Amino acid sequence: MNLDRYKNLKRQNRETINLNPIQRGGVIPSEAKKAIYEFWDGYSICDFCHGRLDEIDNPPVRDFLNDLSEFLNMDIVRLTHGAREGKFIVMHALCKEGDYIVLDKNAHYTSYLAAERAKLNIAEVGYEKEYPIYKIDLERYKEVIDELEDKNKSIGLILLTHVDGNFGNLNDAKKVGKIAKSKGYPFLLNCAYTVGRMPVDGKKLKADFIVASGHKSMAASGPIGVLAFNEEFSEVIKTSKRYPIKEVEFLGCTSRGLPLITLMASFPYVVNRVKYWEDEIKKTRYVVDELEKIGFKQLGIKPKEHDLIKFETPILDEIAKRDKRKGYFFYDELKKRGITGIKPGVTKEVKMSVYGLEWEQVEYVVNAIKEIVNR
Amino acid sequence: MNLDRYKNLKRQNRETINLNPIQRGGVIPSEAKKAIYEFWDGYSICDFCHGRLDEIDNPPVRDFLNDLSEFLNMDIVRLTHGAREGKFIVMHALCKEGDYIVLDKNAHYTSYLAAERAKLNIAEVGYEKEYPIYKIDLERYKEVIDELEDKNKSIGLILLTHVDGNFGNLNDAKKVGKIAKSKGYPFLLNCAYTVGRMPVDGKKLKADFIVASGHKSMAASGPIGVLAFNEEFSEVIKTSKRYPIKEVEFLGCTSRGLPLITLMASFPYVVNRVKYWEDEIKKTRYVVDELEKIGFKQLGIKPKEHDLIKFETPILDEIAKRDKRKGYFFYDELKKRGITGIKPGVTKEVKMSVYGLEWEQVEYVVNAIKEIVNR
Ligand SMILES: Cc1ncc(COP(=O)(O)O)c(C=O)c1O
Ligand SMILES: Cc1ncc(COP(=O)(O)O)c(C=O)c1O
Repeated sequence: MNLDRYKNLKRQNRETINLNPIQRGGVIPSEAKKAIYEFWDGYSICDFCHGRLDEIDNPPVRDFLNDLSEFLNMDIVRLTHGAREGKFIVMHALCKEGDYIVLDKNAHYTSYLAAERAKLNIAEVGYEKEYPIYKIDLERYKEVIDELEDKNKSIGLILLTHVDGNFGNLNDAKKVGKIAKSKGYPFLLNCAYTVGRMPVDGKKLKADFIVASGHKSMAASGPIGVLAFNEEFSEVIKTSKRYPIKEVEFLGCTSRGLPLITLMASFPYVVNRVKYWEDEIKKTRYVVDELEKIGFKQLGIKPKEHDLIKFETPILDEIAKRDKRKGYFFYDELKKRGITGIKPGVTKEVKMSVYGLEWEQVEYVVNAIKEIVNR
Repeated sequence: MNLDRYKNLKRQNRETINLNPIQRGGVIPSEAKKAIYEFWDGYSICDFCHGRLDEIDNPPVRDFLNDLSEFLNMDIVRLTHGAREGKFIVMHALCKEGDYIVLDKNAHYTSYLAAERAKLNIAEVGYEKEYPIYKIDLERYKEVIDELEDKNKSIGLILLTHVDGNFGNLNDAKKVGKIAKSKGYPFLLNCAYTVGRMPVDGKKLKADFIVASGHKSMAASGPIGVLAFNEEFSEVIKTSKRYPIKEVEFLGCTSRGLPLITLMASFPYVVNRVKYWEDEIKKTRYVVDELEKIGFKQLGIKPKEHDLIKFETPILDEIAKRDKRKGYFFYDELKKRGITGIKPGVTKEVKMSVYGLEWEQVEYVVNAIKEIVNR
């Protein structure tokens, strides 16, 4: 065993401008860093615990969960290890083996995995139109449900990805919420890419359940997630027969450590930043406008309603053919300019986000890309 | 919403000597603190990920899992969010609804919860003798299994708590491993209180599965755990039909963040510290010897083979009767002396550990308690 390799672990790209969409919403503010110093020892959050993580008063976990439910406009909030773990909890608690779950074709791979782990079947709702928009045909939820009912299939859950991780398409969740309600099925909205970035009002969107991701969009160190739900569905939190204060699906306590500390410490920052969502959209549209001028083509809904941008980039593909670094030239040239987060070697399609960057940085990124392409 | 309460989160007892057994093994060394600075942003561990957390080379997750399996003498290692999540994964992957799991009566509440969540039945193996030793009658595993088989019950798993969290009793796991093997059932050893504190050799103990807890005993920030198993049981890690590189029970990735960074950074420290386990036992026995002189009575196996000590403390109960602070006097007096981690108000029984303290600190603790009792 060469133990030296665990000494002085360094994050290679720590000081770069990182355009990876999954990372832009998880950059933590200095408030969270300070709190980390206090609570980095294992189980330190349990100093004043009386048996329930969600009822700890010091640090203020109980208040925090109440404030979070106000922030989301949902009745009850619990902590999970991430969006995926929240989805599994809902599926495992609500559905029985073999049930169908109806979800959008843009659903994250973890939605499929959670269903597979819970031994459920999947029925997909497809697109209004595939290329280049890939907009989910929300009205189709009704038909897919009808078709399943006609075949006497048992439906356990309706799931919608609020904003998907592939195109960054924002869905009008209320439409699906209404369909679910009228059909009498519980509705889970996956807000991994929205809660903490943009304002989300659970009741307005008619969500019965919301999952969110701390490390992805709530400026927290991973892994941590949020599961919010309405009173009517309090059955998810069945308590143990043998240990009546312990909640079964949460195995007693979930996020017992640093990730929760950072989620709490970042909360005031997150509550504030969602107010500036319009400015983030402006930055995003600026990037699209500028890069479409040099031959990038934005996929997904136009104009952008979310910071995740997927570009088709034939121009990069062309350059790759004549560059000796092949597809790696783009990654390489960006890196020279202090920019990372673009998949190395990929030139056909590129995903990026400038969420949370200063306008000067956004301009710097745009100019860097133009320079690389127009060399 | 009063957001001020999340500003400047402080850990009240940060600078005290903490005797809480669940916290002594989770104190992180400075190596881990340094690594935290590098990786505190959400998903930062994913910078160079190609789709599998366990195969990330920068930081060296892949090597780490190999080294961990060598450290535990087990074939395969995966990361979980904690010991309990590891137990649920094993149960959920291996057992079918309604199966029996045979476990020791000192099993942690999370073993029962994991079984309840996986919809399993429980058969308990009791004590050789209850008060004051509470030693598990390991040979009884055979009889309990026979009884279930006679009733035609389906047995899914044999579970033993290596060291339990109530008395700190160390079990001779090999005995149970042999019984499980001879009967043909998989054997899960819960090492939440042992791996990272004392040497554990999975093959020698005949364990098919081992779960361990990073925040509890491996000097890591929570929540994180380890699941180790042998080749023969590689079926736990079924991969998804739809996403062949993603492992279903792990929902793709589990501990995607800071806790893993601290577990890795602390690993050299942990590998080293288990070599000094005998000295920890000496400290523990010294505490027992000294405090039994003033009327404490150690419960559980004697002499101690683990750092968790449970005392019966009639003397504290007596003092509480004549002190105006009632049962809180002990907590209060310890706190004045910079010592925490003893449950406030409790005087009949007291749990403590001096694991990882310097000898001077151990003596200081013993003298402080003597002083409080002999006032
Ligand atoms: C839409 C969507 N859902 C869920 C997830 C997974 O989030 P978590 O890591 O919190 O499980 C992601 C992550 O990329 C995502 O994009
Ligand atoms: C014996 C035992 N098992 C399991 C656990 C739970 O550990 P984790 O928080 O890693 O699930 C504990 C915690 O106190 C324990 O004492």
